[in-house]
Amino acid sequence: MEIITLDTNQKHELIDITSKVNSVVKESKVKEGVCFLYVPHATAALTINENADPNIKTDIIKAVNKMVPEHDNYLHDSIDNNAAAHIKSTLIGVSEHIPISNGGLQLGTWQSLMFVEMDGPRSSRKIIVEIIDKR
Amino acid sequence: MEIITLDTNQKHELIDITSKVNSVVKESKVKEGVCFLYVPHATAALTINENADPNIKTDIIKAVNKMVPEHDNYLHDSIDNNAAAHIKSTLIGVSEHIPISNGGLQLGTWQSLMFVEMDGPRSSRKIIVEIIDKR
Amino acid sequence: MEIITLDTNQKHELIDITSKVNSVVKESKVKEGVCFLYVPHATAALTINENADPNIKTDIIKAVNKMVPEHDNYLHDSIDNNAAAHIKSTLIGVSEHIPISNGGLQLGTWQSLMFVEMDGPRSSRKIIVEIIDKR
Repeated sequence: MEIITLDTNQKHELIDITSKVNSVVKESKVKEGVCFLYVPHATAALTINENADPNIKTDIIKAVNKMVPEHDNYLHDSIDNNAAAHIKSTLIGVSEHIPISNGGLQLGTWQSLMFVEMDGPRSSRKIIVEIIDKR
Repeated sequence: MEIITLDTNQKHELIDITSKVNSVVKESKVKEGVCFLYVPHATAALTINENADPNIKTDIIKAVNKMVPEHDNYLHDSIDNNAAAHIKSTLIGVSEHIPISNGGLQLGTWQSLMFVEMDGPRSSRKIIVEIIDKR
Repeated sequence: MEIITLDTNQKHELIDITSKVNSVVKESKVKEGVCFLYVPHATAALTINENADPNIKTDIIKAVNKMVPEHDNYLHDSIDNNAAAHIKSTLIGVSEHIPISNGGLQLGTWQSLMFVEMDGPRSSRKIIVEIIDKR
């Protein structure tokens, strides 16, 4: 198990972590298997999408924020003012996997792996990477 | 493979199954690996989110029900009046994984694993737990 | 690793790939383990839902298209007119797993595995299938 640690700078932000995860895969020397990614936070998520046009990150954030308004009489907001981030974490999800073949992640041409911050800025956000060898 | 069985009591309900899954992990004696959770139902789902404030469960249900209205001229409603539950199952998803390290699930401090009932009450809802040892 | 290849015919379309994935599982001869499915595209996704009533596929497409309008001043639309498909890919997700027991996928009675096209028609859409034996 390896842990990638990130500081985030915005309230809402998608951060490309593909190269960091690629490094973990290379170091593992696993040729065929599956790479499991996991975010141990309840107001963040993981997504796999295009980052060749970085505007897609902005489009995703805006669209998701429209679907889940920042405030809408959420009960949790009286305790910690971030219910919307929790709801969006459930929609986008905290676990993803990517197959490994020939020692590399089998991401599509237009795919990057991105950490989704929805209650930033935060220090020490974590992504857990576990790799299982097919053998 | 282990199966956790649940009866649900509400139409819409999040049920915390963290302790049940923890027991399966302990019994497996796996120290390093991944725990795979799967719901074999088309009107339910799985999510990982905060349950320290149980109001978050209510906020999630309300927000998702607003995004997917209970009735909206869905074609399936003429056969079985639960199209909204099917749509929400696709949005939230039926498969999740959580890494295992030092013999324990690597859930974050604020994370619980929850079964999402969206067409209850139902008896004998199932969650399939499979654990793969990293070795 | 096996790759299933599909041509899609519609802009938005759910295509049942359960029997194709079942064939891969049978050929693998794995009795107990997990089947990992992955879509290497940024404008498509995977979902597990009911296809006994094929109308559910239409209901899902309509509901998701209502949540994410086809055009909404997305920045990416000026480059490639498909931002909505990218956003929906993030919501539905490109990775799924299904447990294998007794040599068969443990799908529920009402569950099918479906490829979600959101920017078709396209030729050579791919689904990567990787199977890990529990041993």
